[in-house]
Amino acid sequence: MENRNNNALIQTLLDCALACEYCASSCLQEDDVKMMADCIKLDRDCSDICMLAARLLQRDSNIARQYLLLCEEICRACAAECAKHEHEHCKQCAEACQKCAEACHANHGDIQQD
Amino acid sequence: MENRNNNALIQTLLDCALACEYCASSCLQEDDVKMMADCIKLDRDCSDICMLAARLLQRDSNIARQYLLLCEEICRACAAECAKHEHEHCKQCAEACQKCAEACHANHGDIQQD
Amino acid sequence: MENRNNNALIQTLLDCALACEYCASSCLQEDDVKMMADCIKLDRDCSDICMLAARLLQRDSNIARQYLLLCEEICRACAAECAKHEHEHCKQCAEACQKCAEACHANHGDIQQD
Amino acid sequence: MENRNNNALIQTLLDCALACEYCASSCLQEDDVKMMADCIKLDRDCSDICMLAARLLQRDSNIARQYLLLCEEICRACAAECAKHEHEHCKQCAEACQKCAEACHANHGDIQQD
Repeated sequence: MENRNNNALIQTLLDCALACEYCASSCLQEDDVKMMADCIKLDRDCSDICMLAARLLQRDSNIARQYLLLCEEICRACAAECAKHEHEHCKQCAEACQKCAEACHANHGDIQQD
Repeated sequence: MENRNNNALIQTLLDCALACEYCASSCLQEDDVKMMADCIKLDRDCSDICMLAARLLQRDSNIARQYLLLCEEICRACAAECAKHEHEHCKQCAEACQKCAEACHANHGDIQQD
Repeated sequence: MENRNNNALIQTLLDCALACEYCASSCLQEDDVKMMADCIKLDRDCSDICMLAARLLQRDSNIARQYLLLCEEICRACAAECAKHEHEHCKQCAEACQKCAEACHANHGDIQQD
Repeated sequence: MENRNNNALIQTLLDCALACEYCASSCLQEDDVKMMADCIKLDRDCSDICMLAARLLQRDSNIARQYLLLCEEICRACAAECAKHEHEHCKQCAEACQKCAEACHANHGDIQQD
């Protein structure tokens, strides 16, 4: 089954989603929540989209590879926003999003070969 | 099919989820975001849980009725928090959550008869 | 708020997702489930993607319009598969998917103007 | 943060969801799909519910512990159905669901202490 080869990518997507969930709820507990509003907004979208990407890959969906194009984009946007902040949860999230964007990029290049 | 009878309940669940999505993103744009942190947190959970409840009902899941018990609880919690704030999106959300809690309550009473 | 103008599109997305949920669970109860395997597979993906599209629009996500491109594609694929079958739930689902694909197409044309 | 202690539980929930996704799509490719209809149905519900449970825990939701009660129940139901079949994906899914049910059970016992 194709998804056997996708295990690393799927785990990267889940790790990114979890980092976004943690970052969003941590941002809501910061003193200056207003400064974190864009971060929370992007964390939500990124978590939702990465989670669904992982599931589409795991079920060998025909649209999974194409979904990764979109996933890469939201990961890059979320990484860029998180990188603006000094909080440890933002730094970790920026790193997880960056890693995930690269993993998505490396894999949606396979679309033509499918 | 059972879900034919559930159409009103399903739409109430979806309306509640949409009100929560709108309230959360509107709260993030308010001047005093910090005061809205709990509201945003509950909006997220309530939206996620109501959306899944609607889907479980629509697919005639065996666990749907039981899921409504939990759904009622998060709706009551979210309604109580939203009711503390004067923003129009909070008032609308409190109303949608209250209506949804009552609809969930009226329907999970059917569990024994299933 | 932008999503006020998106109400019709959001409801079309939710209706499509509900039609897919109903079609998938109905297919699983048909005598010849094997013939319905592709339909069930596409129903799942289409429901997941349309539901998330509706939520992204409702929360005014920056990526929502772009998400509609993908959404249109899975709706067209699901509509084409459902149209092959005579079951009433397949016909209704094909119609909901077709309508949703057209609504997505009409709206993601606005991406450049955002 | 509480979710630091929940890492093992969260990964167990995600592993269970992934096993369910894989089992459902594999069931759809079996020769006798009809025999697998209940398995596919439960796999879907179990995957959806476990995925959301993982996210609620990761974001330190107040309702997370209570959600685990429901999660345990769907995991037990899915494990019981999967255990009826000889397919390798069903066996693996039964095992993942059983492990997850036990992890949920061990953790929702903490509700009173929260």
